[in-house]
Parts: sequence; C-alpha cells; structure tokens
Amino acid sequence: MSKIPHRLYLTEEQMPTQWYNLRADMKEQPDPLINPGTMKPAQVEDLYPVFCEKLAQQEMDAETRYFDIPEEILEMYKIYRPSPLIRAYNLEKALDTPAKIYFKFEGNNTSGSHKLNSAIAQAYYAKEQGLAGLTTETGAGQWGTALSEACAYFGLPLTVFMVKVSYEQKPFRKAVMETFGSSVIASPSETTNIGREILKSDPTTGGSLGCAISEAVEKAVTSPNHRYVLGSVLNQVLLHQSIIGLETKAAMEILGEYPDVIVGCAGGGSNLGGLIAPFMQDKLTGKANPRIVAVEPASCPSFTRGKYAYDFCDTGRITPMAKMYTLGSDFKPSANHAGGLRYHGMSPILSKLYHDGYMEAVAVEQTKVFEAAVQFAKLETILPAPESSHAILGAIDEALKCKESGEAKTILFGLTGTGYFDMTAYSSYNEGTMSDYIPTDEDLERSLATLPKIPGIQE
Amino acid sequence: MSKIPHRLYLTEEQMPTQWYNLRADMKEQPDPLINPGTMKPAQVEDLYPVFCEKLAQQEMDAETRYFDIPEEILEMYKIYRPSPLIRAYNLEKALDTPAKIYFKFEGNNTSGSHKLNSAIAQAYYAKEQGLAGLTTETGAGQWGTALSEACAYFGLPLTVFMVKVSYEQKPFRKAVMETFGSSVIASPSETTNIGREILKSDPTTGGSLGCAISEAVEKAVTSPNHRYVLGSVLNQVLLHQSIIGLETKAAMEILGEYPDVIVGCAGGGSNLGGLIAPFMQDKLTGKANPRIVAVEPASCPSFTRGKYAYDFCDTGRITPMAKMYTLGSDFKPSANHAGGLRYHGMSPILSKLYHDGYMEAVAVEQTKVFEAAVQFAKLETILPAPESSHAILGAIDEALKCKESGEAKTILFGLTGTGYFDMTAYSSYNEGTMSDYIPTDEDLERSLATLPKIPGIQE
Repeated sequence: MSKIPHRLYLTEEQMPTQWYNLRADMKEQPDPLINPGTMKPAQVEDLYPVFCEKLAQQEMDAETRYFDIPEEILEMYKIYRPSPLIRAYNLEKALDTPAKIYFKFEGNNTSGSHKLNSAIAQAYYAKEQGLAGLTTETGAGQWGTALSEACAYFGLPLTVFMVKVSYEQKPFRKAVMETFGSSVIASPSETTNIGREILKSDPTTGGSLGCAISEAVEKAVTSPNHRYVLGSVLNQVLLHQSIIGLETKAAMEILGEYPDVIVGCAGGGSNLGGLIAPFMQDKLTGKANPRIVAVEPASCPSFTRGKYAYDFCDTGRITPMAKMYTLGSDFKPSANHAGGLRYHGMSPILSKLYHDGYMEAVAVEQTKVFEAAVQFAKLETILPAPESSHAILGAIDEALKCKESGEAKTILFGLTGTGYFDMTAYSSYNEGTMSDYIPTDEDLERSLATLPKIPGIQE
Repeated sequence: MSKIPHRLYLTEEQMPTQWYNLRADMKEQPDPLINPGTMKPAQVEDLYPVFCEKLAQQEMDAETRYFDIPEEILEMYKIYRPSPLIRAYNLEKALDTPAKIYFKFEGNNTSGSHKLNSAIAQAYYAKEQGLAGLTTETGAGQWGTALSEACAYFGLPLTVFMVKVSYEQKPFRKAVMETFGSSVIASPSETTNIGREILKSDPTTGGSLGCAISEAVEKAVTSPNHRYVLGSVLNQVLLHQSIIGLETKAAMEILGEYPDVIVGCAGGGSNLGGLIAPFMQDKLTGKANPRIVAVEPASCPSFTRGKYAYDFCDTGRITPMAKMYTLGSDFKPSANHAGGLRYHGMSPILSKLYHDGYMEAVAVEQTKVFEAAVQFAKLETILPAPESSHAILGAIDEALKCKESGEAKTILFGLTGTGYFDMTAYSSYNEGTMSDYIPTDEDLERSLATLPKIPGIQE
C-alpha cells in the first residue's frame, strides 16, 4: 500500500449530499423538551415562535435517518468544504507512539471553526421562510462569525449578543462580525428586559452563554418576523454537523482506515456530535465498536460532574427545558477560564448516549490544554483554538497509552478550529500567568440547586 | 464537460517537486547586485556573511532552470499544501461578468499567507548549515509568523524585528510569533546601532521595513554563527515561491484552463513573482502570452512612480545595492496606510521584466481596496488580507472590463492571505475613518534624492 498522504481532501463529487440523524438509530430516545408554559412535552408548533419551521421540524424529528442537504446549502458548503483529514505524522513521531493519529480539521474558513456548517443551514432555512432577521448569541465568537458569514451570504440582518468577557478578551472578533454586516452587542446589555435584570443584580458580571441566549431569544420574539438561532446543543445542530463525521468516514474508507478511538472536545456538543455521528451509528447498529471520548474543561465539567436532569438552556429561564447533563443554568466558569466550552449544559442526544454508556468523558485543566496546543502548533504548524486543544490533549493521552501498551491503535480527533482570536489567552499561557480553576463541590451544589421542578417528571 | 468544481486541490502525488528559476528563461538578466564596500558586482562569497551558503548560491544562480526541493522541505510543505485553486463563482455572478475568475488561495495556514513557502526553505538551509540562529524583519507580520513556524519546526532560535507601527496595530501577531518560540522586538529598537541612530534622529518614528531590515542584518552579522533571512524581494524568495505558480498551472491544466490575465498584489514581489513564474516562462519562451498585472498601493507606488535604479534594500544602507524600481530607501508610506505592501523597492527580477515590457502595473487607493475586500468577503466568505485585496480589486476591474467588452476571459489572481490580524484596519474602514494618501511628486523627489552614487554605473 502506498504511503498515506498528510492531508486527504474528498473531491466535490465525493462530498456527502445528506445529513445523518443519529436519533433514527438510537434504541432509546432522549427525553422530550418540556414547554415551561404548560410543563408538558413541547410540540413542534410550540417552537415556531422561536425557531423557523423547518428547523423546528428537524429539532423534533427522531425518525428520518437521512435529510437531503438543499442545493443552496451545498453550494455554500463547496466554498470552503470539504475540510481535510490530516495525518499528524510529526505529533506521532514526537510522542514516539505506535498509534496512528488522524484529525479532521474544520478551521480553514473565516469563522475559524466547524460552526459554519450549521450557520449556513440555519440562515438558509430562515431566508427560505422569508424572515426579516435573526438573533443569536456567541461566546468565543466562532459561532457569531460563522452566522455573520452565512447571513451576509443569504442577505439576512443579524444581531449577535456576545458574552461580555469574550467581547472584551477578543475585540477583533467583533470587528470581523461587523465586517460581514452584523450588529454586535455585549451581553448582558441594556437592550433587553433580561439583560437589564441581570445587570441590576450583578452590574460587573462578565456574562455567560446562558444569559446571552436569554437576551437573543427575547430580542427575537419581540422583533417582527425574527427568529432565534443557536450554534450548539440542539438536535438540529448535531444533524447539520454530521457532515463532519460523514466526510471523515468517507476519507478514512479511501485510506482503508477505521478509528479505534475517537476524541472530541465537548462544550455544547456540536462538533463532537457531528464528528462521531456515523461512527456512533456503527456502534448503535453493532457494525463496529470504537471508543468515543469527550474531553471537557475541568472548570466547566458538565459530563463528568454535572447532573443528568431537566434544565433550562438559558439563564433567564425562558427556553424549553431539556434533559441533559447540566451544571445548573446559572453556572458560570471562573473568569480566569480562557479555554472556551463554557456552556452549563450539553447536547441532549450526547447526554443520553453518555448516560447509556456509549461514550466516555474526561475533564482536563486549562494549563495542560495550552501546553498541548503549543506542542501541537510547533509540530503540525496549525495554531489551534483553545476549545479544539482539549481534543488534542485527549488524543495525546490516548497515544501515550498506546506507547505504554505497545498497541498501534488508530486515533481520530476533531480539530474544530484555529486560535487566531485567542491570543490574549495564549499570551497569558506564554507569560506563565495562566492559572487553573476547578469548581468546588459546594459551587456545583449551589448552581444545581436551581434545577427546575416539573410536576410528575422532576420534583 | 462536467461543471468546474469550486475548489481544486492537487493530490500529494501531483505536487511539484522542483522550484522553477525564472532567470533561466529571461533573455536579459537583471543587473547584478553591487557590493557597497567595493562598488563592484557582488560575488557569491560576498553574501556568505549575511546569508547561508545554499541560499546565497540560489540568489546568484541565473542558469539552473529547476531546483529539486529537498525531501525535508517537501515534508513540511505537505503539512499545509497543496493550496486550493478556487473558482469565484459568486463574485462572477455579483459582477455579472462573462469572465471566469480563479484565485490561488495561500491563506489556509497559520502564517495566514504564502510566506511560509520560502520561510521553510530558508530555515531548512540554515539548519542544514548548522547555524545557531536567524534574524529577520517583519512588517504586517505574516513573514515573521511564517518564519517562526518554520524555525520552531526545525528547532532554530529566531529574533524578529517588527516594524513599530505594525507592532502597535497588530498586538496579537507578536503573541503568535512568541507562541512559536521567537523573540519579537519593535523596530527601530535600542538593541542595534542603526536602531539607536534612527531613534535619535526621529524618536517618534513608526519605523519601516527598510529600517527593520538594517537592524536584523546588523544583529545577524554581530551574533555568532547567525544569518539573516528576508521574506520578499530576493531572487531566492521568488524561486521558492514558484511553488504557487507551478501548483496553479498544474491545477488549471487539469481543468483545461489557461489564464488570459494574471493579477497579483505587489509589495516586494514574492507572491506575484511566484504566481506568475511558469506563466511568465510561457511568455518568455513564446508558448503563450497572458497579460500580467501588478497591483500596488497608491501610497507606496514603486512600479508606477518609482525609478528603475540601483538602491539599497534597507534604510541603514548596509545591504548590497540592487537595480530595481524604488522610491528611495528612506521612503515611508504615510502612517494612515494600513494596506501593507509598504516596501520602498521591488524584486529585481520583476523590476527587469516590468522594465522590458512583460508586465503591467496599476496603483490603487486603500479605501477602494477595502471596499473590494468586504465585497469579496461577503460573497466568497473568506476575509482577505489587505495586501491580497489589492489583487481582488485588480481582478474585479478586469472582470468589469470583460463585462463591458463582452469577452469571456479567464482571470487568475493570487489571494495571498487572510486578514484576521488586520481588524484594526477593517474597523477603521467599517467606521468610515479610513482615508487615502498619495505621496506628492515632491515627496518622491525628496526620497529619490537619496539614491546611491556608484562610480561608472550610477552617477
């Protein structure tokens, strides 16, 4: 067999033309969303005021196994996809491991991450429904940038509520979004009721994703013909992100490879859920049994220390409630946390799979994450996003285990994006001023005490 | 014929394994470098104190048509190459032009530009010669980042003198270089004699590439077993950058295409010279006759308003003198210029070809450049570097001419990089505070009055 190339790109003809819906193969379904107004399982119509209709339907559809990707979305995918599957030869050599390490690199587009895959889908369906505009939130800024690109492409106005601490740490992210024509507002803000309330109770807060979601939802439902869109957590997002895993699997098949271990970073679960989708299908249908490892920050450990329970998706408690691993909807990681992945909850699909034993999870500290990031950058000459670097660290750990055991396993990890807008964090790592933070049990008890009560379901 | 794909990547097997040396096909050679010590044409040995030997030999070699790319360099190229050839379908549609627009995109690597192609070669030869370290200068920061990546990969210490105005405009560039392990110094600095002199005469200067070059050369020749490397202008750099054009031509052949017009931005000429190399070969050997258009900033117009004369490559006047289009070695574009391409001179090879009528050149104002950049970003969802956007504007102008004439020409342009570290400039464009600047005839007369006198050659 000829030597495996460093990077493999599928051709345009080899690109997937359908998304894969993991729920269609799950033996047990995630518990339904609960409408906080009725305290009953949400119906698809309940979501129409917030999400556009096609997306609400995708959100609720557990039966359709494959969705055709509309031609207009495929056309925009082709501007920046396929993304490469890369063999990390230098990392393997430096670790002196018998393992083969592959990564799927989603950072070669202006959003700097995989987020564009779902942003395009969501903007397209919004445009198709004739909406006047969209609102969203962004933390690290990749999602806001991705959606700004997609909205510019489809000609839709966009308002982005950006978590204040990121807004301040990443001033240039705002400028990118504005270049694509979006309005960017630091959250919490004075422009919404919820923002004003939060500022009143905590004027110096750096904000949180949960809070920015509340503001974006409020803004959407109070603006004529607007809807809200979200870049992670949701079932629809995992559906769109399945393009990552489908491309990866197709590329690995061309190489005659199949992963023994798949490692992904986990915040809300959008990349991990997309990357593992077709491999999890193999697992669910008994065709193969790869290990799947989620890597999350020790400062925001929803899988490893959260509770599998119904919770709100936002701090303002206006969204439907989802059964997921959660730290409580008003949990905020410490301000010294710069590694992203700071959402209090986790994709309900991934939560269910983890709960049912289909996945593992580990929590890692941020100085170790940045150490792995810098090692990777020097060897593979890609400056990774802090979020993505959780997966790098996870993959390195797996490769070192292989070194110990002498096993030549095939490791696949998701490199979700680049760190060009994270230089404040890199500088603090370089200067030795970065510290770690692990919430105490009391911290978590306190935030978990806010879980909602749902008669007959969660008392 | 099937529809042409949006992006074409060569496979690893299709990648060029040789660089092409344009000089081997030039009917008339560029005039030789002059050694300022002897006022005679420089010999290769004259360059050894400054450049490592293999690179000095490449600099002086006008005969060897193809150079084998060493295996170690090819290995690092494969980490981020081949770069895609992209069809700008959306731009074509928005311009309503019958022209086909292709661009070669060199921005999908952490340096954010094509500069990595030569950085790798120069770091490799330095390592091979057993040097203790390298020095260089950087303006916009792409070259410094690229060389930092290459030096980290080959394990060579690097000191970067960064033009002070860029150092201040682009704080995060410094952090990237430091992440790869480089030392970054704002130029002019107190660390060199030349820096101290310049600061003494003009304490508030923002610096210039010419000045940073002087400091880097001084630092190299006064440090044991160090050499200096430069990211543009030089013949060796154009040689390494020929990989861009060779890949482009191979990709266009696969598509059954050949460009009628090739457009490139021009600062020192590294990307333009690389992009056009094999097409210029066709022109020089009578095989084809594409138009070649250099686009430069109106604020630093070396081709269009400079003089074809011998000049120093640096402000401190310590480098060999080169015959080139120059604005005078102490020319500095106005501080409001944010578009890069701010070098006072131009590649001697390109200067000679322009002088002999093989190329055209146009100068454009920066607000128009940013207008083209934003239009392109929204349509093609890549945020371009300001430098690269000069070529976008040039390509748009050519496409609009085609619209007028009804000609379905094939336009090729070089998109040298991404603008993620240029958000200060984008913000000033977005906010409407960006202004244009064109040096007066008196400005240019003043700086051109400093051209050196060389007995018998330039009086």
